[in-house]
Amino acid sequence: MQYRLAVLPGDGIGREVTSAALTVLKKIESLFSFSTEVEEADIGGAAIDRFGHPLPQRTVEICQASDAVLLGAVGGPKWDNLPGDLRPEAGLLGLRKTLQVFANLRPIRVFPELMDASPLKREVVEGSHFIIVRELTGGLYFGEPKERRQTANGLEVVDTLHYTEDEIERIVRVAFDLATKRRGHLTSVDKANVLESSRVWREVVQRVALDYPQVQVHHQLVDSAAMMMVQKPTFFDVVVTENLFGDILSDEAAVITGSLGMLPSASLSSRGPGLYEPVHGSAPDIAGQNRANPLATLLSLSMLLEHSFSQHEAASVLEKSVLSVISQGYRTADLAGRHHQALSTTEMTERVLAAL
Amino acid sequence: MQYRLAVLPGDGIGREVTSAALTVLKKIESLFSFSTEVEEADIGGAAIDRFGHPLPQRTVEICQASDAVLLGAVGGPKWDNLPGDLRPEAGLLGLRKTLQVFANLRPIRVFPELMDASPLKREVVEGSHFIIVRELTGGLYFGEPKERRQTANGLEVVDTLHYTEDEIERIVRVAFDLATKRRGHLTSVDKANVLESSRVWREVVQRVALDYPQVQVHHQLVDSAAMMMVQKPTFFDVVVTENLFGDILSDEAAVITGSLGMLPSASLSSRGPGLYEPVHGSAPDIAGQNRANPLATLLSLSMLLEHSFSQHEAASVLEKSVLSVISQGYRTADLAGRHHQALSTTEMTERVLAAL
Ligand SMILES: CC(C)[C@H](C(=O)O)[C@@H](O)C(=O)O
Ligand SMILES: CC(C)[C@H](C(=O)O)[C@@H](O)C(=O)O
Repeated sequence: MQYRLAVLPGDGIGREVTSAALTVLKKIESLFSFSTEVEEADIGGAAIDRFGHPLPQRTVEICQASDAVLLGAVGGPKWDNLPGDLRPEAGLLGLRKTLQVFANLRPIRVFPELMDASPLKREVVEGSHFIIVRELTGGLYFGEPKERRQTANGLEVVDTLHYTEDEIERIVRVAFDLATKRRGHLTSVDKANVLESSRVWREVVQRVALDYPQVQVHHQLVDSAAMMMVQKPTFFDVVVTENLFGDILSDEAAVITGSLGMLPSASLSSRGPGLYEPVHGSAPDIAGQNRANPLATLLSLSMLLEHSFSQHEAASVLEKSVLSVISQGYRTADLAGRHHQALSTTEMTERVLAAL
Repeated sequence: MQYRLAVLPGDGIGREVTSAALTVLKKIESLFSFSTEVEEADIGGAAIDRFGHPLPQRTVEICQASDAVLLGAVGGPKWDNLPGDLRPEAGLLGLRKTLQVFANLRPIRVFPELMDASPLKREVVEGSHFIIVRELTGGLYFGEPKERRQTANGLEVVDTLHYTEDEIERIVRVAFDLATKRRGHLTSVDKANVLESSRVWREVVQRVALDYPQVQVHHQLVDSAAMMMVQKPTFFDVVVTENLFGDILSDEAAVITGSLGMLPSASLSSRGPGLYEPVHGSAPDIAGQNRANPLATLLSLSMLLEHSFSQHEAASVLEKSVLSVISQGYRTADLAGRHHQALSTTEMTERVLAAL
């Protein structure tokens, strides 16, 4: 088998962690007898610096011609004062929209060996293992109008939370499908006591639920879900929600694990290439120092092997290798407690290569 | 002095906790030589049952003719299947809008004696003490259009996040004023990398900040704020944000204290009566059993005495009495650990009366 992979290192530690992933991919290719043609392209601040735009046309074309896209991270203080549509994040949002990757999957898992890094008490967080399915190409992020208006009474501004029924249904189906492969428990998060879009959302979930009698469905208001995530995270199995609620809840969920440096994500479309990226940001403060934790990117690569390359065994072996280096006690600086020596990015990558 | 107070017990435990507050108010009146004319009215499910509407006109009139409104709680499974505008919550939203109480203040405090009830580790949560200032009458809650549309491509739905510059400025000024009376630290929460309304919000904060050189301002993205609230809640002093972000973050913040049953809120307008209510809900499961914790409502009454009656000493004495019964080890069922006997609502109220 031969695949095409677009790699977008982006900004900050993005280059170090994607380069770790490529090293690991080479080894996996030889172990599982497939090959990958890798093409690199710019996005975010790096693209602004070189081309004056966070998402150059060449990058779009390379991504579209690939089977999958691996992204490092975008953003940094250097570009914070540019106008909205010329900031690094605009590149990421544009790429999501162009690739139509509407289904953002964020697995949240508490690694037993890392639990002490959680801000939550052990008895609260232990055993948490769920996945957030976030709608990624609709809602307040892209709805129109999104504008300022000068009126007789001064300035006013609107953003629009827009969904079609079809957009809701396709993400909800992704979540139900996942739930059937897991513990059969789906939590749909909305704000149906206030938002009309949430009332439609809830109706769609109720309708689709008829096709999945084996899945148990809970509807939860977003404020209550934000509580539950801290109070009883073990409650959740699959969580499905709209774009902005998903943004907030998935970051909240990430932090309860205590190991942001370990969390991967996949953004899938119905057809074209999927987009894979670590949940952590570009960490400009440690960029270029060979200190970044590459494991979130390696777990993202594992999701890529699974969903875009259908290399299920390779995906599973890579995931197990990452877990095994953690159980062996290897840690990068973000997770090294008093009892661990902090490995560099490249040293940690070596450990995973050895474990493969 | 003579004041007029509207009391809206609402649903579930609402009647028990407001009745506790009225008992305590009687005693405070005699201690501080003022008197209150109390008028009771229906809201929420109780009003639906009696008048077929969650916010009867009579209730609106009584509230408008008062110096302050004390609310218990609204909602319950009994009314969950009514259409949106006839549900209990619609009564609360309508009251907020009618009274123009745009400034919702939610103090978040970790009581040293209750810290073990927090899901967070002691070293993370200890010393947290901040206040969330939530815009309460704008944003996605009330913006128009808010509707379904049948199109050639099927059903679509929109909600509108709408703000005028003036609406943003008035809430931001409330927050700056509070910050000058506290630790001089303001966190403004927005999603300026995605929402146009957040970009205007941030500009207004930056402009108003020029009038408050003594206040240190942080801008934080809502996803990052949701993380920080779990990871480092002691960071915050005053947090200001728009309506829906405030809804989510204030519930998240409430739960980290471990004592939802202790948290009060005040919703203030520029002129008319303020609206005071406990943060907890109507708890239908324990309603009518004399088990509810009345302390959040008593702390809301303390805020009412402070902000609407300008009875500063009475407010402070009531707050201290509530704190003292907690330090003396008295607990209602929600907070009674192994070492405490659970007091009933009326027993707990007796303790506060004794402490006054
Ligand atoms: C960078 C930003 C635009 C983005 C988002 O809000 O979606 C990020 O927070 C994320 O969750 O991937
Ligand atoms: C009941 C509901 C409409 C309300 C809100 O969303 O504002 C509640 O969650 C609150 O925070 O007071």
